[in-house]
Formats: sequence, structure tokens, C-alpha cells
Amino acid sequence: MSTKRVYLDYAATTPLAPEVLKDMEPYLKDKYGNASSLHSFGQEALAAIDEARQKVAQFLGCSSGEIIFTSGATEADNLAIKGIVERYKIQDTRYKIHIITSAIEHPAVMETCESLNKEGVEITYIKPNKEGIVGVKDVERAIKENTVLVSIMYANNEVGTIQPVREIGKMIEAENREQRTKNKIIFHTDAVQAINYLDCNVDHLHVDLLSLSGHKIYGPKGVGALYIRKGTPIKRIQDGGAHEYGLRAGTENVPGIVGLGGAINNIQYFTRQSFAPQNLGGQASNIQYLKRLRDKLIDNVLKNIPNSQLNGSRELRLPNNANFSFKGIEGESLLISLDMEGFACSTGSACAAKKLAPSHVLLAMGLSPLEAHSSLRITLGKYTTEKEIDKFLEILPKIIKKLRKISGATGRKSSSVPKESCFE
Amino acid sequence: MSTKRVYLDYAATTPLAPEVLKDMEPYLKDKYGNASSLHSFGQEALAAIDEARQKVAQFLGCSSGEIIFTSGATEADNLAIKGIVERYKIQDTRYKIHIITSAIEHPAVMETCESLNKEGVEITYIKPNKEGIVGVKDVERAIKENTVLVSIMYANNEVGTIQPVREIGKMIEAENREQRTKNKIIFHTDAVQAINYLDCNVDHLHVDLLSLSGHKIYGPKGVGALYIRKGTPIKRIQDGGAHEYGLRAGTENVPGIVGLGGAINNIQYFTRQSFAPQNLGGQASNIQYLKRLRDKLIDNVLKNIPNSQLNGSRELRLPNNANFSFKGIEGESLLISLDMEGFACSTGSACAAKKLAPSHVLLAMGLSPLEAHSSLRITLGKYTTEKEIDKFLEILPKIIKKLRKISGATGRKSSSVPKESCFE
Repeated sequence: MSTKRVYLDYAATTPLAPEVLKDMEPYLKDKYGNASSLHSFGQEALAAIDEARQKVAQFLGCSSGEIIFTSGATEADNLAIKGIVERYKIQDTRYKIHIITSAIEHPAVMETCESLNKEGVEITYIKPNKEGIVGVKDVERAIKENTVLVSIMYANNEVGTIQPVREIGKMIEAENREQRTKNKIIFHTDAVQAINYLDCNVDHLHVDLLSLSGHKIYGPKGVGALYIRKGTPIKRIQDGGAHEYGLRAGTENVPGIVGLGGAINNIQYFTRQSFAPQNLGGQASNIQYLKRLRDKLIDNVLKNIPNSQLNGSRELRLPNNANFSFKGIEGESLLISLDMEGFACSTGSACAAKKLAPSHVLLAMGLSPLEAHSSLRITLGKYTTEKEIDKFLEILPKIIKKLRKISGATGRKSSSVPKESCFE
Repeated sequence: MSTKRVYLDYAATTPLAPEVLKDMEPYLKDKYGNASSLHSFGQEALAAIDEARQKVAQFLGCSSGEIIFTSGATEADNLAIKGIVERYKIQDTRYKIHIITSAIEHPAVMETCESLNKEGVEITYIKPNKEGIVGVKDVERAIKENTVLVSIMYANNEVGTIQPVREIGKMIEAENREQRTKNKIIFHTDAVQAINYLDCNVDHLHVDLLSLSGHKIYGPKGVGALYIRKGTPIKRIQDGGAHEYGLRAGTENVPGIVGLGGAINNIQYFTRQSFAPQNLGGQASNIQYLKRLRDKLIDNVLKNIPNSQLNGSRELRLPNNANFSFKGIEGESLLISLDMEGFACSTGSACAAKKLAPSHVLLAMGLSPLEAHSSLRITLGKYTTEKEIDKFLEILPKIIKKLRKISGATGRKSSSVPKESCFE
């Protein structure tokens, strides 16, 4: 292993920014009060949480009272989806609820839907097109009289494709105006991967619920948030004390929440770029910078490595994501070989890394199990340097050549991947 | 406010021990990998989690595979109780499940039971005696053919009373041997307040499930754990990736988990005291030290403040807890007056502090709403000094005298508490 490791897996998790850790430190040291305590130790913790809540609210363009802090985006997704279902179930236990989601959601949304499906909730999974984009019309056509929730992610975690969330939101608003469904349709988006790069103003997006995570935006692990539009019918799923406006019980993770507030505050400038380029400030160029590096990476790989393909739309794509398939290569072997050279990448979602199944996202996009198994995700971040990308571009073709040689593949025959490693 | 504040609310939360923060620091800085990632960044995070899991398992006397990390004890309690109910519901949706718990549980257990009750689960709340102790025989008598779960806390968070968990565990084991119930009865204990001071060996206690929290044991907020005895039928409640043996989805809070491991490792010596006094080492005397300070506090208050009473058993009590009622005093005014003098205490559970309702624990013990409303909880910890206790004992009688004077109470008439502040 080379002594200096290169991290190219920012979609799995980001380093905690030193300035964010600095914000957290007082709450890891002297300011240790429980935010529910009435004394001064408690009140200073509560004030810190309030400030963080304002920062998140400002970023999303909503009011503080619409932000619920959670232990992460998985909990936020669970709260969003189960919270709505549970609330409707109170009204009518026999009511057959219908949820629309996509076939390329993160496991936190997908598995939650699967779990509800076992309890009798009806789920429609919208397939994306070959480019990894969900069609607004497809979502519209899936709406039924008993639809109560639509959950479509903002940007995909594996291929980085950007979904037409705003258009879906507007379509759902129109549906709700026409009152063709028994209940108002609630619209949720998992925006975990989008927060760093896209406009997440909730009114711009026309969403009712939006999930986000601390550790994907240079904030701490173990903290996330759910935006809940005022008036949205929802029931808490974690019972206990009356924390978080009664919607999420449990002693608040004060340092974590402070870190999330600090982290989201740091990306203000990024977000603004899509609608106010003149106000970008110094940080905005980071997106351009990332895009340039990422494009260099994509162009170089497609040019220099035979039988390689980019998965997912090239245009409707996060600026930090590249996802390739290399014919005749087993993704996990590639990942391990890269790791031995000091490069950290992934085959797909970290949350599904241990399953060894081909990516459900790539399969839904129409790739064969063999193609899906030969994928490599490279995600850049704000500490990525051009030198690192150049180094990576030097190593990658050599490793692929070597692996293809070992497996006897020419790079042209997909059957060279051992069958037993392709299917669960 | 005096410049140097005195913290006497260790049952609400504890400071993060500097040595624990030091353990966490690498994972807040360079070792930022996602523990589910297959590359070296991920693997070093996973190794750290494994090590923490072993520390927790060693403390509880179980195997690592029986420990699930959560976002805190509230989530652990929710997982324990709902996880069992959901699992049984899969077997038979029409099965009317019965749970036995106590009337003095923490809101995390109590509200979870309330929530399940609304969905048709039958709950029996066992009342404690006047001393705040739940009777083993009372639990035994409550067992019915459809009982599947008993949840009794190890030590109460408000009055510090120690429950006969081991005896209840043995009784349940005997019941299960006789197979009088339709299903095996599972036994859960919320041990949050007990971890610092009592023997928490799960075999000694005869428990199947045990909840604990990081921030009550000088570890970080936002992390907890649930012990799940091998073979216990349980379903996860937070869906998503296959983290934590498939029982708790969500990217692991690596620094938090490392901190929990470090914190629990630090109290090894405490725990051993109850059954191996010869092996105590240097730290063991801390319990004796705390007990001496706490007894000084209790003796002095009862002697010098007229119409004061200690709530809860004096003997079967955590070494760091004192809980008084002062006739004619409104607990919250007392708390605020103390805070203005620099002393942080509480009226009861921080998790219920905002409810302004009289403590359900004190009411269940037979206190009147007025007596319950006049309560003050003082909880000591490992950074408490004798000087702090002396200072507190100097201030407290003066404040009580002043408050009684303002409200026109002699300290003998309970009617001096304004009625409107006594009831919700």
C-alpha cells in the first residue's frame, strides 16, 4: 500500500471539516448540558440546538419549526415514510395505503417500503430510463385513488443522476388541487447526495418532506434531519420524551446537531449557484473545479480503457460522481486492487456493500447482472486534488489490464466473470 | 449567578470524560471512513466498532454478536419493545399481545408501551411500593397466557431506587420452564442509570434485553446500545442497509461508538465491586466516596430543612441519587433559584422537564400531586467535590426559607403552592 492514501469515496462519507469540529468542540467539552434540562447547562445546549436548527432552516428556506433532528438520514427516511403511513392508519386501520417510489432509491427508502409492503401497504416502484432518470409522467401515471405518499430521491447515490424532483413536486401539487385522490398526496425526497451541490429550497422543490445527513456534507456521523412542511400529517416513530416538537424522542445529540448546523452553513454558497450565480463568493468555484476534475476523469477513462462505459446520464449528474462498468472485470476485485494501491473507491452504495449482490440501481437502469457487477463508483470531494486524479488515472488502466489478464478476459467477453460471484 | 457553576444533575447527562474524547478524536479527524466501505478507510472504522463492541460485551458478560449500537437508550428501548411486538405480530396478526412494565419507567419505555396500547397491545403497569420498589410477586401475578414481554428498569432515573431485576429474571425463567404462557416471555431492562454503579452482567441478571446510553456514563450523546440475547425473536424497527447484523440500519456513528466503548471500559472496576470486592482497584472507592457525599447531603437536608422528606428507599438506592420533597415549595421555582446561584439540579427526569406535570414516578409511589410538585433531584458524579456539596448545603436552606416566605407558606401547609401550577 502506498503511504499516502487517496480518498475517492465522498458519496459514502466525507471527512469532518476541521472548522466544523471546532464548532462542535465546546459541546464535547464544557457545554455538556442536556438540552431538556431547565438549568443554565441545559439552556446553553438548547440555544446551540436552536441556532443549528435555524441554519438548517435557512438553507432549506423553511422555518425552524419545520426541522426535526434525527440520528441520520436513514432515521429521517424511516420517519418520513412510516410516520405518514402510521398517521393515516390511525384514521382508518383498514385503509389500503398506496406509496409510489422509484426503483433506484437508497436502501433506507427502499427497505422501509419493503417492510411496509409486508404489512399490507401497496408500493409502486417506478423504473428509471436507461440514463438513470425517473420520468415525471411515469410517476403521474402511477397515482391512484389511495396514493398518500410519493418518495423520489433528489440525486442518486450510486450514479449521481439528478431526478426531476421539482417537476414531480409541481405535478403532485396540481394533482392535489384537483383532489382526485382520497387524501392529499405527500411528497418526500431523500436529498442526502444533493445537499452539497443542488438547490434544496423546499418551496422551489415543492416537497413536503426532505431528508438529509450530516456525514455526507463534511459534518459528523450520527446526525441527520427531516424537513416536515407545516401541516403535514405525521406520527413520530421513536417514542419517549417530548423532544423535537414531540416528533422524535431521545436526548438530543448536541455536538452532532451543532456540527450539522455548521456543515450546512458552510455550503450556503454552493447551493445558491443554481439561481444566483453573481452571489457565489469564493466557494462556488469548487463546483466548477470538481466538475472539471470529474470530467477529466471520465474523458480519460472512456478514452484509455477499452470496453468501459459511463453509467448514468452525463448531463443530469452530480458534479462529483463518476460510475463506470468495465467489461470482464469483477467490481470487488477492482476495488480491492485499487485499495492495495492506496485508492479508496466503491462498487456502489456503502450501505449495500456487504450484500455482494449486483447494484439494484444499475439493474433497474437496464444493465445486465454482469455489467452491474463490473461497476466502479468514484466520487470526488472538496479535498480532492488534481494530482490525486492524475495518479488515479495512471494506476487504473494498469490494474484493469492486469485483472483482465488474470481472468483471461480480453475485455470483450462478459462471460469471463466467474458465475458464482455474480449472483447471491 | 456565581462565576463557578456546580453541576448536580449527573442523572440527566454526564460530561464527556476527557480521556474518552481522546479515544474518539482519531475518528473525528483522519479515520473518517464509512464502516460499511470495503476499502482501508472503511476497514479501520469497522475495526474500531468491533473493538468497542467487544468492550461493551465484556462489560455485560455476553458475546459481541449480542450487542447492537443505536442512537441512544430511547432508540434501544423502542427497538427492544417494538422489535419483540413486531416479531410476534408477524407470526399471528390477530394475536393480542400482553406486556408487563412498571408505573415508574422512563418515558422511553412508558410512551412506547402507550403507543403500542393504542394499536391494540395490552399493557399492565405494576405500581411500586411507597419506597419506589417494584415487587417480584406483583410482576409474577400479572403474567397471563398471552404475556410476551416484561420490561422493568434496573434503577429509577428520578429516585434512584434499585429494582429486583435479578429476582424478576429468575422468576421469569422459572415461568418459561413451566411453559404456562403461549410464548416464551422475554425480559427487558432499561439499565441506563445502573451502568455506572451496579452489576450489569446479563447472566447474573437473567435478562434477554438490556438498554444503555453513552451520555450517562461519561461517554458521548447520540449513542447507546441494546443487548439482545442470542435466539431472542426480534425484528428491526429502523429499515435500510444491513448494518448491525441487520438489526439497525444506518451508517454507524463511529466516533460515538468508539466513545461508548471507551466510557464503558472506564467503569469496569465500578461494576465488579458487587461481586468481587477484592479486585476493585483504585476506582472502586469512587462509589464509596459518592455514597459518603450523598449521605452527608441527605442527612444534612433532613436535619436542617423543616418539612423535608427523602423520596424513595434509602437503602435500595443508587449511590449518587438524592430526591427530596419540600412542603410548600414549587419544585421549578426552587430549581430556578438554585440555578441563579449557580447550582444545576432538576425536579425529575430531564426527558419530562418540559411537561410541567407532576412526576409520574412520585405519584405512582403514592405522593400527592402537591408533594410530587415540590420535589428536587440532586445527582452526583465522579467530578463532584465535597466543597461543592458543602456550598450547596449552605445555599439550599436559605433559598427554601426565602421561597416559603414569598409564597406565605410556613412550610407546614401544602395549600401554599398555587393551585394552577400544580396540575396540567
